[in-house]
Amino acid sequence: MSQDGLFVSFEGIDGSGKSTQARLLADRLTALGRDVVLTREPGGSPGAEEIRALVLQGDPDRWSAETELLLFTAARRDHLERTIRPALEAGKIVICDRFADSTRMYQGLSRGNLRSKVDALHELMIGIEPDLTILIDMDPSTGLSRAKSRNTVEERFEDFGHGLQAQMRDGFLALAEEFEHRFRVIDGARAPESVAEDVWAAVSPHLT
Amino acid sequence: MSQDGLFVSFEGIDGSGKSTQARLLADRLTALGRDVVLTREPGGSPGAEEIRALVLQGDPDRWSAETELLLFTAARRDHLERTIRPALEAGKIVICDRFADSTRMYQGLSRGNLRSKVDALHELMIGIEPDLTILIDMDPSTGLSRAKSRNTVEERFEDFGHGLQAQMRDGFLALAEEFEHRFRVIDGARAPESVAEDVWAAVSPHLT
Ligand SMILES: Nc1ncnc2c1ncn2[C@@H]1O[C@H](COP(=O)(O)OP(=O)(O)OP(=O)(O)O)[C@@H](O)[C@H]1O
Ligand SMILES: Nc1ncnc2c1ncn2[C@@H]1O[C@H](COP(=O)(O)OP(=O)(O)OP(=O)(O)O)[C@@H](O)[C@H]1O
Ligand SMILES: [Mg+2]
Ligand SMILES: [Mg+2]
Repeated sequence: MSQDGLFVSFEGIDGSGKSTQARLLADRLTALGRDVVLTREPGGSPGAEEIRALVLQGDPDRWSAETELLLFTAARRDHLERTIRPALEAGKIVICDRFADSTRMYQGLSRGNLRSKVDALHELMIGIEPDLTILIDMDPSTGLSRAKSRNTVEERFEDFGHGLQAQMRDGFLALAEEFEHRFRVIDGARAPESVAEDVWAAVSPHLT
Repeated sequence: MSQDGLFVSFEGIDGSGKSTQARLLADRLTALGRDVVLTREPGGSPGAEEIRALVLQGDPDRWSAETELLLFTAARRDHLERTIRPALEAGKIVICDRFADSTRMYQGLSRGNLRSKVDALHELMIGIEPDLTILIDMDPSTGLSRAKSRNTVEERFEDFGHGLQAQMRDGFLALAEEFEHRFRVIDGARAPESVAEDVWAAVSPHLT
């Protein structure tokens, strides 16, 4: 999708190690002299971070699933215009900690049955997909216990418990089949260095 | 579109008298014992007012036309769910100071050529149109001089001057032809009471 640079996203359930692996990959590429932009969603640009704050603070049902979907799409549009697309056009490697597949899961699946609206909105207002999506797969209890060991102020999406995480895991695996040309599924229930080796094996063939 | 109540919107260029006429109509209906909800866009529900504040504050090009369109659609969705639809379902008369036609004009026409995206988003995420839309039409210089005589903190959309206002006037008149079944065009360059009489003549046939 990207014309010049390379666009890699990390996906997976809460606590699966996306942020850890995104950072390790960015460090390794930077050490090799590559120009890397490490970013995240929701957020990733000043405007998108403000929208993120508006969505995530306060009462869990303060926004309907549909309104939340529109707000996250607005944040993604800003992130795309101000951060991702300029970096790709400058030939950089963009590593994004969650992207549209997280919306397909969380707004499209867990908060209602909005998948077709998610897809229509994406096609209308976003259009781009990553060149490569790394799905870090693991058992929900492992992810949950890792996530709980951290402190976080944004509990909204992490409080739905094991049932939701199991549904999300299956959903992500189904997405990986749906978009098999760009997905790579990696077992995350191992030491960070072992996971990172598999990530590298998936990414390095894309480097020019 | 509304099942039980009546949904009336006011549209027109800046300073044309929308807020004044919406208020006069609400007062008249209330005096007749009708249940009226007077509301406005962008805004009209607590969440939508927060989104409004996020969009309208700050630098004029802090959001692209596309991001702004998504944010206003999010605000409209919240407004629809929390204010408009519940009122209509309770059989009330909803009077809305600006609605989707303002987005068709401002985001769809003046900030780029986004009309087809505006329409697609509306169909996907909003769906409803007013039963009756009152377009208060007037010469842009009259509207501008009225608008300038007020104090306002939200200058963003009023600073584009006469050229834009003229384009908006023509655009609104074209919309009134496009949706002639629900639009009524009223000459606003008269005393408020005279305008209000024409508004009443347009609204009263819809009362059951
Ligand atoms: N391979 C691993 N083995 C053990 N612990 C790990 C591993 N990878 C990450 N962790 C730890 O697990 C926790 C969650 O990791 P991380 O923040 O990378 O996950 P995440 O997928 O980004 O989570 P979230 O979805 O909540 O953002 C952190 O405390 C991290 O240090
Ligand atoms: N018929 C009228 N004749 C003269 N002045 C008017 C008339 N109607 C409204 N005004 C005055 O003109 C100004 C603009 O009116 P109003 O706020 O109702 O317009 P508006 O269309 O809601 O503007 P905006 O688009 O900026 O919200 C106000 O000061 C109002 O008192
Ligand atoms: Mg993380
Ligand atoms: Mg007004």
